[in-house]
Amino acid sequence: MTGLAALVEQLAARGETVAAAESLTGGLLTATLVTVPGVSRVLRGGLVVYATDLKHSLAGVDADLLAARGPVDPDVALALARGARERCGADWGLATTGVAGPGPQDGVPAGTVYVALAGPGGLGRVRALDIDGDRSHVRLAAVESALDLLREAVAVP
Amino acid sequence: MTGLAALVEQLAARGETVAAAESLTGGLLTATLVTVPGVSRVLRGGLVVYATDLKHSLAGVDADLLAARGPVDPDVALALARGARERCGADWGLATTGVAGPGPQDGVPAGTVYVALAGPGGLGRVRALDIDGDRSHVRLAAVESALDLLREAVAVP
Repeated sequence: MTGLAALVEQLAARGETVAAAESLTGGLLTATLVTVPGVSRVLRGGLVVYATDLKHSLAGVDADLLAARGPVDPDVALALARGARERCGADWGLATTGVAGPGPQDGVPAGTVYVALAGPGGLGRVRALDIDGDRSHVRLAAVESALDLLREAVAVP
Repeated sequence: MTGLAALVEQLAARGETVAAAESLTGGLLTATLVTVPGVSRVLRGGLVVYATDLKHSLAGVDADLLAARGPVDPDVALALARGARERCGADWGLATTGVAGPGPQDGVPAGTVYVALAGPGGLGRVRALDIDGDRSHVRLAAVESALDLLREAVAVP
Protein backbone atom coordinates (compact mmCIF):
# COMPACT_ATOMS: atom_id res chain seq x y z
CA MET A 1 0.00 0.00 0.00
CA THR A 2 2.93 2.33 0.55
CA GLY A 3 3.77 1.96 -3.12
CA LEU A 4 0.21 2.74 -4.05
CA ALA A 5 0.17 5.94 -1.97
CA ALA A 6 3.43 7.01 -3.63
CA LEU A 7 1.87 6.53 -7.06
CA VAL A 8 -1.16 8.63 -6.11
CA GLU A 9 1.09 11.35 -4.69
CA GLN A 10 3.23 11.38 -7.83
CA LEU A 11 0.17 11.75 -10.07
CA ALA A 12 -1.16 14.54 -7.83
CA ALA A 13 2.22 16.30 -7.96
CA ARG A 14 2.13 16.12 -11.76
CA GLY A 15 -1.48 17.32 -11.84
CA GLU A 16 -2.52 14.22 -13.77
CA THR A 17 -5.50 11.87 -13.60
CA VAL A 18 -6.10 8.18 -14.31
CA ALA A 19 -8.97 5.92 -15.39
CA ALA A 20 -9.28 2.21 -16.17
CA ALA A 21 -11.08 -0.24 -18.43
CA GLU A 22 -11.15 -3.66 -16.84
CA SER A 23 -12.18 -7.02 -18.12
CA LEU A 24 -10.88 -9.96 -16.06
CA THR A 25 -10.13 -7.79 -13.00
CA GLY A 26 -13.76 -6.64 -12.95
CA GLY A 27 -13.23 -3.37 -11.05
CA LEU A 28 -10.43 -4.55 -8.77
CA LEU A 29 -7.93 -2.09 -10.27
CA THR A 30 -10.00 1.01 -9.48
CA ALA A 31 -11.15 -0.55 -6.18
CA THR A 32 -7.48 -0.92 -5.25
CA LEU A 33 -6.79 2.73 -6.07
CA VAL A 34 -9.71 3.97 -3.94
CA THR A 35 -8.16 2.41 -0.85
CA VAL A 36 -5.77 5.40 -0.83
CA PRO A 37 -7.16 8.43 1.07
CA GLY A 38 -7.15 11.50 -1.20
CA VAL A 39 -7.28 9.47 -4.40
CA SER A 40 -10.11 11.66 -5.65
CA ARG A 41 -7.45 14.18 -6.71
CA VAL A 42 -6.23 11.76 -9.39
CA LEU A 43 -8.84 9.03 -10.03
CA ARG A 44 -11.54 9.84 -12.58
CA GLY A 45 -13.27 6.47 -12.73
CA GLY A 46 -13.47 3.38 -14.89
CA LEU A 47 -15.30 1.01 -17.17
CA VAL A 48 -15.89 -2.58 -16.15
CA VAL A 49 -16.23 -4.27 -19.53
CA TYR A 50 -16.73 -7.87 -18.48
CA ALA A 51 -19.03 -8.85 -21.39
CA THR A 52 -17.20 -8.70 -24.71
CA ASP A 53 -19.74 -6.41 -26.42
CA LEU A 54 -19.25 -3.76 -23.70
CA LYS A 55 -15.61 -3.47 -24.79
CA HIS A 56 -17.05 -1.95 -27.96
CA SER A 57 -20.10 -0.09 -26.67
CA LEU A 58 -18.58 1.36 -23.48
CA ALA A 59 -14.86 1.58 -24.26
CA GLY A 60 -15.01 2.10 -28.02
CA VAL A 61 -12.88 -0.88 -29.03
CA ASP A 62 -13.30 -1.55 -32.75
CA ALA A 63 -15.92 -4.26 -33.24
CA ASP A 64 -14.01 -5.81 -36.17
CA LEU A 65 -10.84 -6.05 -34.06
CA LEU A 66 -12.81 -7.80 -31.30
CA ALA A 67 -14.41 -10.19 -33.78
CA ALA A 68 -11.07 -11.03 -35.43
CA ARG A 69 -8.91 -11.43 -32.33
CA GLY A 70 -11.28 -12.10 -29.46
CA PRO A 71 -11.19 -10.16 -26.18
CA VAL A 72 -7.83 -11.50 -24.90
CA ASP A 73 -5.42 -9.73 -27.23
CA PRO A 74 -2.68 -7.09 -26.89
CA ASP A 75 -4.26 -4.67 -29.38
CA VAL A 76 -7.61 -5.00 -27.63
CA ALA A 77 -5.85 -4.22 -24.33
CA LEU A 78 -4.33 -1.06 -25.79
CA ALA A 79 -7.65 -0.01 -27.32
CA LEU A 80 -9.28 -0.49 -23.92
CA ALA A 81 -6.67 1.73 -22.28
CA ARG A 82 -7.23 4.43 -24.91
CA GLY A 83 -10.98 4.07 -24.45
CA ALA A 84 -10.72 4.46 -20.67
CA ARG A 85 -8.62 7.58 -21.11
CA GLU A 86 -11.01 9.16 -23.60
CA ARG A 87 -14.39 8.13 -22.16
CA CYS A 88 -13.38 9.08 -18.61
CA GLY A 89 -11.44 12.22 -19.54
CA ALA A 90 -8.19 11.17 -17.86
CA ASP A 91 -4.53 11.80 -18.66
CA TRP A 92 -3.72 8.10 -18.26
CA GLY A 93 -5.77 5.05 -19.15
CA LEU A 94 -5.07 1.56 -17.80
CA ALA A 95 -6.57 -1.67 -19.04
CA THR A 96 -6.68 -5.38 -18.23
CA THR A 97 -7.93 -8.29 -20.32
CA GLY A 98 -7.25 -11.98 -19.91
CA VAL A 99 -8.39 -15.34 -18.59
CA ALA A 100 -8.68 -15.65 -14.80
CA GLY A 101 -9.47 -19.36 -14.98
CA PRO A 102 -9.77 -21.95 -13.61
CA GLY A 103 -10.22 -23.36 -17.15
CA PRO A 104 -9.30 -21.96 -20.55
CA GLN A 105 -11.66 -19.56 -22.33
CA ASP A 106 -12.17 -19.91 -26.09
CA GLY A 107 -8.93 -21.88 -26.28
CA VAL A 108 -6.88 -19.29 -24.37
CA PRO A 109 -5.20 -20.80 -21.27
CA ALA A 110 -5.93 -19.50 -17.77
CA GLY A 111 -3.34 -16.96 -16.66
CA THR A 112 -2.97 -15.37 -20.10
CA VAL A 113 -3.32 -11.64 -19.43
CA TYR A 114 -2.57 -8.39 -21.25
CA VAL A 115 -2.28 -5.11 -19.40
CA ALA A 116 -1.98 -1.76 -21.16
CA LEU A 117 -1.35 1.92 -20.57
CA ALA A 118 -2.40 4.85 -22.76
CA GLY A 119 -1.15 8.37 -22.13
CA PRO A 120 -0.57 11.84 -23.49
CA GLY A 121 0.81 12.30 -27.01
CA GLY A 122 -0.37 8.92 -28.23
CA LEU A 123 1.72 6.99 -25.70
CA GLY A 124 0.75 3.32 -25.59
CA ARG A 125 2.32 0.37 -23.82
CA VAL A 126 1.21 -3.24 -23.54
CA ARG A 127 2.61 -6.04 -21.41
CA ALA A 128 1.89 -9.73 -21.91
CA LEU A 129 1.69 -11.86 -18.77
CA ASP A 130 1.51 -15.59 -18.12
CA ILE A 131 0.40 -15.87 -14.51
CA ASP A 132 0.36 -19.05 -12.45
CA GLY A 133 -2.13 -19.44 -9.63
CA ASP A 134 -5.83 -19.38 -8.88
CA ARG A 135 -8.42 -16.85 -10.12
CA SER A 136 -7.78 -14.47 -7.25
CA HIS A 137 -4.02 -14.51 -7.73
CA VAL A 138 -4.31 -13.99 -11.49
CA ARG A 139 -6.44 -10.89 -10.89
CA LEU A 140 -4.21 -9.45 -8.18
CA ALA A 141 -1.12 -9.95 -10.35
CA ALA A 142 -2.87 -8.31 -13.32
CA VAL A 143 -3.75 -5.26 -11.21
CA GLU A 144 -0.19 -4.96 -9.90
CA SER A 145 1.28 -5.25 -13.38
CA ALA A 146 -1.07 -2.60 -14.78
CA LEU A 147 -0.15 -0.25 -11.93
CA ASP A 148 3.53 -0.97 -12.63
CA LEU A 149 3.09 0.35 -16.19
CA LEU A 150 1.78 3.60 -14.74
CA ARG A 151 4.47 3.76 -12.04
CA GLU A 152 7.16 3.45 -14.69
CA ALA A 153 5.55 6.09 -16.93
CA VAL A 154 5.23 8.72 -14.22
CA ALA A 155 8.57 7.83 -12.60
CA VAL A 156 7.41 7.21 -9.05
CA PRO A 157 10.48 7.92 -6.90
CA MET B 1 -19.16 -16.15 -0.43
CA THR B 2 -21.75 -18.92 -0.30
CA GLY B 3 -24.43 -16.25 -0.34
CA LEU B 4 -22.79 -14.63 -3.34
CA ALA B 5 -22.71 -17.88 -5.29
CA ALA B 6 -26.39 -18.44 -4.48
CA LEU B 7 -27.22 -14.99 -5.86
CA VAL B 8 -25.32 -15.70 -9.08
CA GLU B 9 -27.05 -19.08 -9.44
CA GLN B 10 -30.46 -17.52 -8.88
CA LEU B 11 -29.83 -14.88 -11.55
CA ALA B 12 -28.59 -17.56 -13.96
CA ALA B 13 -31.68 -19.67 -13.26
CA ARG B 14 -33.86 -16.64 -14.06
CA GLY B 15 -31.83 -15.88 -17.18
CA GLU B 16 -31.14 -12.37 -15.92
CA THR B 17 -28.07 -10.13 -15.92
CA VAL B 18 -26.70 -7.39 -13.67
CA ALA B 19 -24.52 -4.29 -13.97
CA ALA B 20 -23.39 -1.60 -11.52
CA ALA B 21 -22.61 2.11 -11.30
CA GLU B 22 -20.28 2.73 -8.38
CA SER B 23 -19.09 5.90 -6.75
CA LEU B 24 -17.62 5.40 -3.27
CA THR B 25 -17.11 1.66 -3.73
CA GLY B 26 -14.99 2.37 -6.81
CA GLY B 27 -15.41 -1.02 -8.52
CA LEU B 28 -15.54 -3.16 -5.38
CA LEU B 29 -19.10 -4.28 -6.08
CA THR B 30 -18.35 -5.76 -9.50
CA ALA B 31 -14.94 -6.99 -8.26
CA THR B 32 -16.81 -8.88 -5.52
CA LEU B 33 -19.16 -10.47 -8.05
CA VAL B 34 -16.29 -11.65 -10.28
CA THR B 35 -14.88 -13.74 -7.43
CA VAL B 36 -17.67 -16.24 -8.23
CA PRO B 37 -16.69 -18.78 -10.93
CA GLY B 38 -19.21 -18.72 -13.78
CA VAL B 39 -20.33 -15.16 -13.06
CA SER B 40 -19.93 -14.30 -16.75
CA ARG B 41 -23.38 -15.86 -17.26
CA VAL B 42 -24.95 -12.99 -15.32
CA LEU B 43 -22.51 -10.06 -14.99
CA ARG B 44 -22.50 -7.55 -17.84
CA GLY B 45 -20.10 -4.99 -16.38
CA GLY B 46 -20.12 -1.62 -14.68
CA LEU B 47 -19.35 2.07 -14.53
CA VAL B 48 -16.97 3.43 -11.92
CA VAL B 49 -18.16 7.03 -11.64
CA TYR B 50 -15.82 8.34 -8.98
CA ALA B 51 -15.61 11.91 -10.31
CA THR B 52 -18.97 13.66 -10.07
CA ASP B 53 -19.10 14.69 -13.76
CA LEU B 54 -18.78 11.04 -14.83
CA LYS B 55 -22.09 10.33 -13.08
CA HIS B 56 -23.59 12.47 -15.83
CA SER B 57 -21.38 11.64 -18.80
CA LEU B 58 -21.04 7.88 -18.25
CA ALA B 59 -24.19 6.95 -16.33
CA GLY B 60 -26.57 9.60 -17.68
CA VAL B 61 -27.56 11.14 -14.34
CA ASP B 62 -29.29 14.48 -14.96
CA ALA B 63 -26.75 17.29 -14.61
CA ASP B 64 -29.29 19.61 -12.95
CA LEU B 65 -30.11 16.96 -10.35
CA LEU B 66 -26.40 16.52 -9.60
CA ALA B 67 -25.90 20.28 -9.33
CA ALA B 68 -28.92 20.73 -7.05
CA ARG B 69 -28.38 17.78 -4.70
CA GLY B 70 -24.73 16.87 -4.99
CA PRO B 71 -23.53 13.31 -5.64
CA VAL B 72 -24.59 11.80 -2.28
CA ASP B 73 -28.34 11.70 -2.70
CA PRO B 74 -31.03 9.00 -2.93
CA ASP B 75 -32.37 10.20 -6.30
CA VAL B 76 -28.83 10.30 -7.69
CA ALA B 77 -28.34 6.73 -6.46
CA LEU B 78 -31.48 5.58 -8.25
CA ALA B 79 -30.50 7.42 -11.43
CA LEU B 80 -27.10 5.72 -11.27
CA ALA B 81 -28.76 2.30 -10.97
CA ARG B 82 -30.98 3.07 -13.96
CA GLY B 83 -27.95 4.31 -15.89
CA ALA B 84 -25.97 1.15 -15.14
CA ARG B 85 -28.87 -0.99 -16.31
CA GLU B 86 -29.32 0.95 -19.55
CA ARG B 87 -25.71 1.68 -20.50
CA CYS B 88 -24.60 -1.89 -19.79
CA GLY B 89 -27.69 -3.58 -21.19
CA ALA B 90 -28.53 -5.51 -18.03
CA ASP B 91 -31.81 -6.62 -16.46
CA TRP B 92 -30.74 -5.26 -13.08
CA GLY B 93 -28.72 -2.17 -12.22
CA LEU B 94 -27.08 -1.61 -8.84
CA ALA B 95 -25.57 1.64 -7.59
CA THR B 96 -23.61 3.04 -4.66
CA THR B 97 -22.92 6.64 -3.71
CA GLY B 98 -21.75 8.07 -0.40
CA VAL B 99 -18.90 9.27 1.74
CA ALA B 100 -16.26 6.68 2.69
CA GLY B 101 -14.42 9.10 4.96
CA PRO B 102 -12.41 9.56 7.06
CA GLY B 103 -13.71 13.15 7.03
CA PRO B 104 -16.97 14.65 5.74
CA GLN B 105 -17.31 15.59 2.07
CA ASP B 106 -19.12 18.82 1.16
CA GLY B 107 -20.76 18.79 4.58
CA VAL B 108 -21.99 15.19 4.31
CA PRO B 109 -20.70 13.03 7.21
CA ALA B 110 -18.55 9.96 6.59
CA GLY B 111 -20.62 6.78 6.49
CA THR B 112 -23.58 8.40 4.73
CA VAL B 113 -24.34 6.02 1.85
CA TYR B 114 -27.19 5.38 -0.57
CA VAL B 115 -27.49 2.12 -2.46
CA ALA B 116 -30.04 1.57 -5.21
CA LEU B 117 -31.49 -1.09 -7.48
CA ALA B 118 -33.20 -0.60 -10.84
CA GLY B 119 -34.99 -3.41 -12.60
CA PRO B 120 -37.55 -4.45 -15.19
CA GLY B 121 -40.84 -2.57 -15.51
CA GLY B 122 -39.48 0.62 -13.97
CA LEU B 123 -38.68 -1.04 -10.64
CA GLY B 124 -36.56 1.18 -8.42
CA ARG B 125 -35.46 0.82 -4.81
CA VAL B 126 -33.15 2.95 -2.68
CA ARG B 127 -31.77 2.30 0.78
CA ALA B 128 -30.19 4.95 3.01
CA LEU B 129 -27.34 3.77 5.23
CA ASP B 130 -25.41 5.33 8.08
CA ILE B 131 -22.32 3.17 8.46
CA ASP B 132 -19.84 3.33 11.34
CA GLY B 133 -16.23 2.36 10.76
CA ASP B 134 -13.22 3.12 8.62
CA ARG B 135 -13.12 3.67 4.84
CA SER B 136 -12.71 0.01 4.10
CA HIS B 137 -15.62 -1.04 6.30
CA VAL B 138 -17.91 1.64 4.86
CA ARG B 139 -17.22 0.34 1.36
CA LEU B 140 -17.66 -3.33 2.26
CA ALA B 141 -20.95 -2.58 4.02
CA ALA B 142 -22.15 -0.54 1.02
CA VAL B 143 -21.40 -3.45 -1.34
CA GLU B 144 -23.20 -5.93 0.92
CA SER B 145 -26.24 -3.68 1.23
CA ALA B 146 -26.46 -3.16 -2.53
CA LEU B 147 -26.23 -6.92 -3.10
CA ASP B 148 -28.97 -7.40 -0.46
CA LEU B 149 -31.31 -5.24 -2.55
CA LEU B 150 -30.75 -7.58 -5.49
CA ARG B 151 -31.05 -10.72 -3.33
CA GLU B 152 -34.43 -9.54 -2.06
CA ALA B 153 -35.64 -8.65 -5.56
CA VAL B 154 -34.76 -12.00 -7.13
CA ALA B 155 -35.77 -14.02 -4.03
CA VAL B 156 -32.55 -15.92 -3.45
CA PRO B 157 -33.63 -19.11 -1.62
